[in-house]
Amino acid sequence: MKKNYYSYEKFRDDTKELIKKQNIFNPEAIVGVARGGLTLAHAMAEGLNIREVQTIRTELYDNVCKRQEISLFGNCNFSGVKRVLVVDDIADSGETLKEVMNHLESSFKEIEFQSATLFYKKSSLYQPHFWINEANEWIEFFWEKDFTKD
Amino acid sequence: MKKNYYSYEKFRDDTKELIKKQNIFNPEAIVGVARGGLTLAHAMAEGLNIREVQTIRTELYDNVCKRQEISLFGNCNFSGVKRVLVVDDIADSGETLKEVMNHLESSFKEIEFQSATLFYKKSSLYQPHFWINEANEWIEFFWEKDFTKD
Repeated sequence: MKKNYYSYEKFRDDTKELIKKQNIFNPEAIVGVARGGLTLAHAMAEGLNIREVQTIRTELYDNVCKRQEISLFGNCNFSGVKRVLVVDDIADSGETLKEVMNHLESSFKEIEFQSATLFYKKSSLYQPHFWINEANEWIEFFWEKDFTKD
Repeated sequence: MKKNYYSYEKFRDDTKELIKKQNIFNPEAIVGVARGGLTLAHAMAEGLNIREVQTIRTELYDNVCKRQEISLFGNCNFSGVKRVLVVDDIADSGETLKEVMNHLESSFKEIEFQSATLFYKKSSLYQPHFWINEANEWIEFFWEKDFTKD
């Protein structure tokens, strides 16, 4: 499949767009989904002047005879926060983000969670509240490409 | 004070150097200090092919009549891991990183922790195991500059 390189410059412009879209939801904390959402979580926290950034990790297990299962790691703790933005790089199958949102919403019923991604695939079973690009090709994010050995 | 802009291109090159320096310590997990260390934690995890990335947050309190206190937030959990790299953008006063390292080392006595930063100030009370640049001026990291409103 054709790989489409996603550069830092494109990321910078898209992230600024995602930041502008937050003026109504106005989140007070950010949860980044590791690893893919970490750089975005950092950039959005800086742009929105949010100090509270937490992360959650996921692992996908292949089980024989039944569907893949996702495990979540990392305990989030919120104090005096009403609106939290969950960020990831892409809603591809959507399973990860759906699982993360379900987990957070059931764990913190008094908090409103919304989600933001750089890319969204129309076939995803979860649609983020905020997204910038529709994903039609394989995306090679700069953080996946730029730091591996030459 | 003169501000020195630290671009993504410089970050990319420095991070690759930091990654090369890991061939002896060979960490199995990464802890990023939020917010400043998040983008570096992500990039190093990708470059080192480490899936386990966790974060820890710090807050500095000004107390009347006594010295500043640092509070740490975020519980790290390690399973079957012997070597963990703690990453932050800069060891400036060094207080944050010193506190984080003390906390992790006393909480997980069976794990070896080492630390890596992009910048190190000679006056820092803590010296990271790995660092790239000596900090002599005020550094304006691209993640602090590029995502704020024009």
